[in-house]
Amino acid sequence: MKIGIIGTGIVGQVIGARLLEAGQDVMFGTRDVDKTLARTTPDGYGNPPFSQWIKQQPQVRLGTFREAAARGQTIFNVTAGVASLAALALAGQENLRGKILIDVANPLDSSQGFPPSLAVCNTDSLGEQIQRAFPEAKVVKTLNTMSASVMVNPALVPGDHNVFLSGNDVEAKAQVSTMLTEWFGWKPESMIDLGDITTARGTEMLLPIWVRLFSVLQNPFINFHIAAGTPPG
Amino acid sequence: MKIGIIGTGIVGQVIGARLLEAGQDVMFGTRDVDKTLARTTPDGYGNPPFSQWIKQQPQVRLGTFREAAARGQTIFNVTAGVASLAALALAGQENLRGKILIDVANPLDSSQGFPPSLAVCNTDSLGEQIQRAFPEAKVVKTLNTMSASVMVNPALVPGDHNVFLSGNDVEAKAQVSTMLTEWFGWKPESMIDLGDITTARGTEMLLPIWVRLFSVLQNPFINFHIAAGTPPG
Repeated sequence: MKIGIIGTGIVGQVIGARLLEAGQDVMFGTRDVDKTLARTTPDGYGNPPFSQWIKQQPQVRLGTFREAAARGQTIFNVTAGVASLAALALAGQENLRGKILIDVANPLDSSQGFPPSLAVCNTDSLGEQIQRAFPEAKVVKTLNTMSASVMVNPALVPGDHNVFLSGNDVEAKAQVSTMLTEWFGWKPESMIDLGDITTARGTEMLLPIWVRLFSVLQNPFINFHIAAGTPPG
Repeated sequence: MKIGIIGTGIVGQVIGARLLEAGQDVMFGTRDVDKTLARTTPDGYGNPPFSQWIKQQPQVRLGTFREAAARGQTIFNVTAGVASLAALALAGQENLRGKILIDVANPLDSSQGFPPSLAVCNTDSLGEQIQRAFPEAKVVKTLNTMSASVMVNPALVPGDHNVFLSGNDVEAKAQVSTMLTEWFGWKPESMIDLGDITTARGTEMLLPIWVRLFSVLQNPFINFHIAAGTPPG
């Protein structure tokens, strides 16, 4: 399948590499192709720049947000959450129409240092903002509650743990479930469909504790598992 | 130990009953004792009123917020989160001074119907508001991420699952850990100390997804487990 990945950061790179291994056709979109290829310094977390990463991935295409969205049959949003709406606007309403838009972004606001807060939460979410801005896209919020390594390789975390899905289009969520299984190795029983896109509030609001757990446990290979007993009655 | 329970709702009843079984001396505090005893209708969730519950618990004392806080050596806040600051103000600064205040409340705002939002979140939390309002109390936020039945009986949920602790006083958190083990049966390895009271933001912000999971899974006997793999490097 032709996949458009909106964003060139580490989350996109990890997802893109796995999609290539799974035999998919991957095009990344960025704001300014020349600028992205000219950047040779690591990102704020010490990850190598996209320009270096893409040298090891000769099959990968790089274009503008618009080109990647136009070419992709399914779109991943892996931009920084606070920049997602602007990036998707450049991708273009018409290039998202009718397509599944897998929203992996979180609206983390690090402008006040650590810990980051959320730029939107509680009575709204980034997932909802994107669905409202692009009403003809089929937004499915998923994978946003774990590090990129775990998203594409759930076996990094042993035992049972979960991935959540939020979205208004039931058929789109079913297709994304299949993608998560076939491309990334998620077991169907590990997926929890929370409901419509408003349930993205709940998954985006997991980030504040995730960030603290990451600090306390000093471990990026963590994930939430919803343990359940026998219901009463 | 003499325990003061601020609030007479179902969470307090479940905790109070367990504390009695564990041999503790329990006094509940309420705003207006006569009114609490006069109320004979179930709460909004169909739970029997306190006046009925206390008939089966002859050892339990009931007094004002102030009386329960004054008598208790350790205090539980189990009021509705949006009413906690007012209730604790009536309990009295001097009756909380130097004591461990176990804050189980969540600032759920149900005024707009389902799902509830949070009355405070993101850059602040109820736990922090309480610690700021009562600087000489040792606020420990814990147990607020699960239903009352699970708080006092973690075995209702099989397998590994966690209880989080947030608070500025390390010694107080250690004492609360011991209480969770001795009174409620929590295993030490199930407890995650997230850090200071600002980390209560993360646990209170688990409520939006908890509420959705409760709806989707139709099961109150659920809890979060932080699954972890081997860290890299």
